[in-house]
Amino acid sequence: MKGVLFDGKEASIVDDLEVRAPGANEVLVKIGAAGLCHSDISVINGTIPFPPPVVLGHEGAGVVEAVGELVTHVKAGDHVALSTLASCGACRECDRGRPTMCAKSFGQLNQPFTRGGKPVYNFAGLSVFAEQIVVKGVQAVKIPKDIPLASAALIGCGVLTGVGAVLNRAKVQPGDTVAVIGTGGIGLNVIQGAKLAGAVRIVAVDANPAKEAVAREFGATDFVDARAVEDSVKAVQGLVPGGVDHAFECVGHVAVIRNAIDMLGRAGQAIILGVAPSDAEASFHVSSMFLDKSIMGCRYGSSRPQYDIARYADLYRTGALKLDELVTRTYALDDFHQAVEDAEAGKVARGVFVF
Amino acid sequence: MKGVLFDGKEASIVDDLEVRAPGANEVLVKIGAAGLCHSDISVINGTIPFPPPVVLGHEGAGVVEAVGELVTHVKAGDHVALSTLASCGACRECDRGRPTMCAKSFGQLNQPFTRGGKPVYNFAGLSVFAEQIVVKGVQAVKIPKDIPLASAALIGCGVLTGVGAVLNRAKVQPGDTVAVIGTGGIGLNVIQGAKLAGAVRIVAVDANPAKEAVAREFGATDFVDARAVEDSVKAVQGLVPGGVDHAFECVGHVAVIRNAIDMLGRAGQAIILGVAPSDAEASFHVSSMFLDKSIMGCRYGSSRPQYDIARYADLYRTGALKLDELVTRTYALDDFHQAVEDAEAGKVARGVFVF
Repeated sequence: MKGVLFDGKEASIVDDLEVRAPGANEVLVKIGAAGLCHSDISVINGTIPFPPPVVLGHEGAGVVEAVGELVTHVKAGDHVALSTLASCGACRECDRGRPTMCAKSFGQLNQPFTRGGKPVYNFAGLSVFAEQIVVKGVQAVKIPKDIPLASAALIGCGVLTGVGAVLNRAKVQPGDTVAVIGTGGIGLNVIQGAKLAGAVRIVAVDANPAKEAVAREFGATDFVDARAVEDSVKAVQGLVPGGVDHAFECVGHVAVIRNAIDMLGRAGQAIILGVAPSDAEASFHVSSMFLDKSIMGCRYGSSRPQYDIARYADLYRTGALKLDELVTRTYALDDFHQAVEDAEAGKVARGVFVF
Repeated sequence: MKGVLFDGKEASIVDDLEVRAPGANEVLVKIGAAGLCHSDISVINGTIPFPPPVVLGHEGAGVVEAVGELVTHVKAGDHVALSTLASCGACRECDRGRPTMCAKSFGQLNQPFTRGGKPVYNFAGLSVFAEQIVVKGVQAVKIPKDIPLASAALIGCGVLTGVGAVLNRAKVQPGDTVAVIGTGGIGLNVIQGAKLAGAVRIVAVDANPAKEAVAREFGATDFVDARAVEDSVKAVQGLVPGGVDHAFECVGHVAVIRNAIDMLGRAGQAIILGVAPSDAEASFHVSSMFLDKSIMGCRYGSSRPQYDIARYADLYRTGALKLDELVTRTYALDDFHQAVEDAEAGKVARGVFVF
């Protein structure tokens, strides 16, 4: 079958991949759509080190083809959105509803594919840039069949991470004020999560003024062009006197993290979602934390995918959650290199491969 | 009447202070006992700038002598423990149960005293190193008469701050693991708060090994002598594999704050209680925050004094909260200079003036 393989030097489209049959706790999924995320490109350019050969892709949706004997929550023919989180379901953290804290939910290397008889790794527990994949049962979440797979494909990465950070980690309440710094794939989902949660002010901050329209489309009430103002902290505090209740950092830059902390009001929370370089150190003014402020890390939206993906699917169907609008262009998998080129050139917010 | 006055140069005991009658929302309290805290000494040595002349003292208990016409929750003859928090009771923050976030609860200067006809400031809304004081009604919390005033005097500062940080801010749960760095007045109250909350491991960390006995008396299950180990982060993680759920920094030093952050386990919380120099900047490794870790400031234990002081008084009477053991020596107010000398020499954990 066809897939996008990274061999340690370059990514290429191959058509001689094989995937093994699902184990007792696993599900075989025929991929219907898959989003291209920056993390995939980071594997190709070496920013995210990963052992080759590996099939790329980590946000997708598809149709169940077969399930292992112990899988009961989905069956052949079901539509599923996929999560990267292969949580074990049996440990202390899973048992208390924190699968993102499960030790088995990350860093596990699997080789469900072969090519010419040699094992091939999957990426982030998925590898959705292949026509078929095998995943742990817990990673496949049933969704209604009336949701386009190209839209559902995006739930498992940006939506879980962004909306989850708002609802599960920050627990934004109706009437709260929010700043969102960086309006890429994660930032837009933070914005729509804040709108869902009932925030009264949602200030989007971005260095690219062209992002204002889409930020407002997703729910931003205000937009600060970070390059047009002298001090974006003061600009946000000018819009929300006293500072915001929640500031989401979606850039991954230490100066931006500091801004997020400094723009907080009393009992405010800075939630760090951006991925900074692995050795990055951020700082804060100790006395600025005094009034019950918090700096909070957040993995994968502190999500419980079986619960969260299902509710996000419901919210999409009521119109309260935007998915279609996240998809700026679709491609055939054969156009992989074009899609990477477009993403790197900033031409598309989110390109999606439709199989 | 008698009191300890700081005139901008030195503190002295004077006997010609006068206090005005309580206003409609105020209470006149005859002080029964008052603790000497480092913050009082910090005013004398200039570390905490405060306009003179001022009567010192900010943790105390006494007996109500008179109340203003609008005060109904206490009456003459009631025993009260005092809080520094003159929250307004009518704003957005007070209304949602966060009086420590009330804008009027700090930084307000009052001159309820006179000396020779000239106005004299109170300190931290109290000035308990005087025989009588006038406070806002909300600052006086009724306590049972069987609690010694010398013990009750300590509730309003160290107990509210330390136990409150555990119960109200960190919300330590039964079975959680806790590290407490610094076992002074605040640290001991964090330790006993963690014990109250049901923590299974309470690791006290202090650079003075002589603190081990009292730390264990208050509930520490383990003690790390910070000077005897090469790396106190590793020492704590050796005792609690994977890191602690909560690390309380009670020193006010940026290197110690960093240690508190670095010793956290998954979803761990570092709570900063120590008062660092006003320009201090602390740092954290951005990727170390990834697994849902938090860095949290905490003012005055996020306390609701009318609620918290009452429950701490109840817990004292059941034996679950230690107050008597916090008082290491009592003095007459006339021995103020001796008490300061003893505190600065580290001879006493908490000296208390008994009137």
